[in-house]
Amino acid sequence: MNQEYPSALLERAVKEFTKLPGIGRKTATRLVLHLLRKSEEEVENFSNALTTLRRDAKYCKECHSISDTDICPICANPLRDHSIICVVENIQDVMAVENTMQYRGVYHVLGGVISPMDGISPSSLNIDSLIKRVAEGEVKEVILALSSTMEGDTTNFYIYRKLQQYGIKLSVIARGISIGDELEYADEVTLGSSIVNRTPFTGKTI
Amino acid sequence: MNQEYPSALLERAVKEFTKLPGIGRKTATRLVLHLLRKSEEEVENFSNALTTLRRDAKYCKECHSISDTDICPICANPLRDHSIICVVENIQDVMAVENTMQYRGVYHVLGGVISPMDGISPSSLNIDSLIKRVAEGEVKEVILALSSTMEGDTTNFYIYRKLQQYGIKLSVIARGISIGDELEYADEVTLGSSIVNRTPFTGKTI
Repeated sequence: MNQEYPSALLERAVKEFTKLPGIGRKTATRLVLHLLRKSEEEVENFSNALTTLRRDAKYCKECHSISDTDICPICANPLRDHSIICVVENIQDVMAVENTMQYRGVYHVLGGVISPMDGISPSSLNIDSLIKRVAEGEVKEVILALSSTMEGDTTNFYIYRKLQQYGIKLSVIARGISIGDELEYADEVTLGSSIVNRTPFTGKTI
Repeated sequence: MNQEYPSALLERAVKEFTKLPGIGRKTATRLVLHLLRKSEEEVENFSNALTTLRRDAKYCKECHSISDTDICPICANPLRDHSIICVVENIQDVMAVENTMQYRGVYHVLGGVISPMDGISPSSLNIDSLIKRVAEGEVKEVILALSSTMEGDTTNFYIYRKLQQYGIKLSVIARGISIGDELEYADEVTLGSSIVNRTPFTGKTI
């Protein structure tokens, strides 16, 4: 769409919005014109929330998750099990696992997965600090909860080799058929993997 | 989803994003964490584009469309036909009609349609200034290009009654089956209206 904007200011704002993932010109225009109908104060609140976050956001010195303090609330919580570390790619994943209410250990945010194609080497991820945490001797288990992709698998293997020597338990999250999914629509690799990695039936449904 | 955010700054930014139309918590989180990975300068550019637009945006004194100048480029253009005014709801509609490249007249942006349910009365729309433009005597035709809703129809009728006395041509845009659409999937009202308002066949396809 070769859209001509009646105002350069409008065009600039729309262009900034289209830089966001999944936001095209049409959606961007709709969002910007929505903000234009709001009060000057409301638009400033919106803008300030973003610039303040970017300027003042801290990352936990322990797990690298976003935090308003040096140590995030999860790492600072004495009720969490500090002997289990769940390794995830990013902050969204921490929130996703937290939402399950099934995990009481702590986290380690890698900041991505190893991907030579995208120029992401092990040194650009928070892997050294993970090894350091394990080397301190308090950790009993590391759970790898990375994406089930080639990059995720590569990262799993890299971490496995680095942590091997410490004699801790290393596990990966279970892969299988999603709860509620019908078998006939599951992809073959997942279905095959779920048969190979079958678990004893305990009589409980979930 | 009862999502707990690990940072109040993050939560505040996400909340601001969810105020935008069509943006839920999940999308908002994704967009905010995307911005968080950008440089401080890039985030400031984004924020500034919005606050500057809101603070400095002007509206054309003639047609009420957004403009960087007192009179918008369309109204200021001597090559446009100033004797035809196309009445639209909002700025997006001006851009949509402009994109068709089929219209060389000028516009009048109402700023909405009459909707007593939403507290939008004729006086809160730019209707008086439309009447004033017509009363000046230069206008030969007013094209009503409002939404095909009850509110749009009410507004059309209100404008019709106000402009009746000036003896100008008043028209509405054609309603019918979209080009490329199959008849069997068209709604009955549109299909019925397209039969009642059939046009002479000229041999041209579009």
